[in-house]
Amino acid sequence: MTTAEIIAVGSELLLGGRVDTNSLFLSESLAEHGIEVRFKSVVGDDVEDIGVAVTNAARRVNLVLITGGLGPTVDDVTREAVARVTGKPVRLRPLALESIKLRLQSAGRVISENQRRQAFLPSGAVLLQNAAGIAPGFAVKWKHCWIVCLPGVSHEARRMCAESLLPILRREGLLSPAIEIRTIHTFGLLEGEIDNRLRGIIPAASPFRLGLLASPLGVSVSLTRSEKLEKRRAGKRTPTKSDASLDSLINDVIARLGQHVFSIDGRTMEEVVGRHFRDGGFTIALAESCTGGLIAHRLTQVAGSSAYVDRGVVCYDNRAKIELLGVPGSLLKRYGAVSAQVAKAMAQGIRMRSRVDVGLSVTGIAGPGGGTAHKPVGRVYVGLATATESYTKKFQFHGERETIKLRSSQAALDMLRRWLCHASLDEA
Amino acid sequence: MTTAEIIAVGSELLLGGRVDTNSLFLSESLAEHGIEVRFKSVVGDDVEDIGVAVTNAARRVNLVLITGGLGPTVDDVTREAVARVTGKPVRLRPLALESIKLRLQSAGRVISENQRRQAFLPSGAVLLQNAAGIAPGFAVKWKHCWIVCLPGVSHEARRMCAESLLPILRREGLLSPAIEIRTIHTFGLLEGEIDNRLRGIIPAASPFRLGLLASPLGVSVSLTRSEKLEKRRAGKRTPTKSDASLDSLINDVIARLGQHVFSIDGRTMEEVVGRHFRDGGFTIALAESCTGGLIAHRLTQVAGSSAYVDRGVVCYDNRAKIELLGVPGSLLKRYGAVSAQVAKAMAQGIRMRSRVDVGLSVTGIAGPGGGTAHKPVGRVYVGLATATESYTKKFQFHGERETIKLRSSQAALDMLRRWLCHASLDEA
Repeated sequence: MTTAEIIAVGSELLLGGRVDTNSLFLSESLAEHGIEVRFKSVVGDDVEDIGVAVTNAARRVNLVLITGGLGPTVDDVTREAVARVTGKPVRLRPLALESIKLRLQSAGRVISENQRRQAFLPSGAVLLQNAAGIAPGFAVKWKHCWIVCLPGVSHEARRMCAESLLPILRREGLLSPAIEIRTIHTFGLLEGEIDNRLRGIIPAASPFRLGLLASPLGVSVSLTRSEKLEKRRAGKRTPTKSDASLDSLINDVIARLGQHVFSIDGRTMEEVVGRHFRDGGFTIALAESCTGGLIAHRLTQVAGSSAYVDRGVVCYDNRAKIELLGVPGSLLKRYGAVSAQVAKAMAQGIRMRSRVDVGLSVTGIAGPGGGTAHKPVGRVYVGLATATESYTKKFQFHGERETIKLRSSQAALDMLRRWLCHASLDEA
Repeated sequence: MTTAEIIAVGSELLLGGRVDTNSLFLSESLAEHGIEVRFKSVVGDDVEDIGVAVTNAARRVNLVLITGGLGPTVDDVTREAVARVTGKPVRLRPLALESIKLRLQSAGRVISENQRRQAFLPSGAVLLQNAAGIAPGFAVKWKHCWIVCLPGVSHEARRMCAESLLPILRREGLLSPAIEIRTIHTFGLLEGEIDNRLRGIIPAASPFRLGLLASPLGVSVSLTRSEKLEKRRAGKRTPTKSDASLDSLINDVIARLGQHVFSIDGRTMEEVVGRHFRDGGFTIALAESCTGGLIAHRLTQVAGSSAYVDRGVVCYDNRAKIELLGVPGSLLKRYGAVSAQVAKAMAQGIRMRSRVDVGLSVTGIAGPGGGTAHKPVGRVYVGLATATESYTKKFQFHGERETIKLRSSQAALDMLRRWLCHASLDEA
């Protein structure tokens, strides 16, 4: 049973401006191979502090994964720290030097004295080639523990993990069946409402864990099953045949949450919506006011979206709503730009002018200014128009400008999703 | 001299889907009060694992800040873990119970048996009231160390940090002058080019540290000065009068990096651009193809942007480019949608049709599909048009679809910034 600790090295990760994200894909990748990450730590570019972190980690897990601190500058001391902890002094590794030179050569450059430092690895370490960058990684066995160092640059670490690290762990017999994690994404229910609906769904002493996580994009329900977590947590208890499978548990959750579930396979709302558009052969055009282009941006994050996203307009200004969407000036005057009537006219206008199957609109007050007693900040109307029907829906969101934009975009995409899969636009 | 470690508790933080972000504002807040965060760790909801993390932390720092694991469920074991480590068993704290009851009452609810658990704190701990939520925090002195527990919910922890934690640390004499951190944001130079330009700018044995961090939005140069870091790093060396001030060092950096510097006060590119627009009284309209609305979204993230963002159009489709921007069909046919000629026509078209001061356009291939040998994925043209002039610029970006969109948006906004502050659009 392999347990791991991930150590991110970098003083900038301690100063508040930036968070370590490499550990996200590393954790996922390890979980897929049955390795439980029990601790994560972050430590500055300090040879002693790194040493303390590595020593502590090696005491409690048998795989220590270090990212960062492998660069060419004097700040990059991960190599030296590992050498000190393990008592394996760094030495020039000719093969590493050769790779660095070749890599630089292909970019028309010559190796500098600093860059040579990157070829000094703890003696006896396994060299991990860096196919995507300069700094080589390495793995060294110490006592009962593998200590593995990867670059801090994300795409380099990702590739090295797949191409070099996992094969070594496989050879060493450290991999095992995946820790099963499934996440169910929902929109439109509060965390407390989901908690109520799911009450009692997991029997006591079950090998499953349920977690709820709220964000502006909705509430995610995660279900985890791990034989190992289970053994460690439940002591002598052995799983019995009566344990429900993860699949049947997920079906139970879906039955209780209904149409609020928008994804059970990790896909984002824009990916789910995109799939429906592709499958149905529909096209869409957008008319955004308070979301300011965010919906268009999200839809076009999906590869292949040019097949169904015809166009979008961002009409902050009333004049733009009139010129680009044909919203009647009288409507704007009578009901105000933030109203169900204008949302409907925007959706109809963009649909007709662009000759697509569905028009989607958002108008609202993202704040912090612009609110009134009658129409406070966070008031948002979403409109959806097809050749035969139009719908509008009113929302009152809370939070800061960015949050209100994000929630509004998710509400609009969710309305689109419900229309695309013929669900009720309101309830479930 | 106070050093701190932040421990985030939560199994979901180890599984890969989610990263601890509370430590970001906690680190910043502590740095502002002269406390150096030397380690961060993440640990699951396991009483033993939390105990190990706390024990290790208390050995190497004198302020241990724990977030999470204070909720009502059986998974929430931070209280118990701290009780075990410190040998101060949990006891019902009547004042904490009273606050929880009041808080629930105001929401029309009655305390449950589980929620009562939250009122059990290690004996002798200082109660930290939670003005924004249910779970109280606490602080306990153990050996030479303060162990402080805050809720995992971000806005609760943030408020408790300001209102309860900092006053305690002040009373205990643990605060001191801020660690000075300044970040200079640049765009348009590679990390290696900046490294070259800044070579030797910081003398050996200086109290300053320089860090470079590359992202799709550019390279950030961070400068840190800490009397403490300095003392710890330099041993007996005492700062002399000849040490340059941080301000003069920043001026040196700016002189070497020129117009590539877009922000020295933490503002984002869209905030910098927005300030120029407001100050100059200009208006803008956008014509986006491959960025798909991202530029409009970014500009409208800034509060008050409705004063200068007139409109934006996302024209993925050639038909939309013709209809919404008046790009001649012949131009599209002759040069293709991804060309300098079309970028220019798009910028001119949106400017004229919306009657604004400046039109900005982007056309390119975000990938993964759509590339050719002649126009590979990542080929992007930016266009800028005013009443009297037009400019276009060609880029070749690398990376995935999201990265290419992000880089393209930053390149376009940087062109806008340079135009707004009368800088050269190309060099610096």
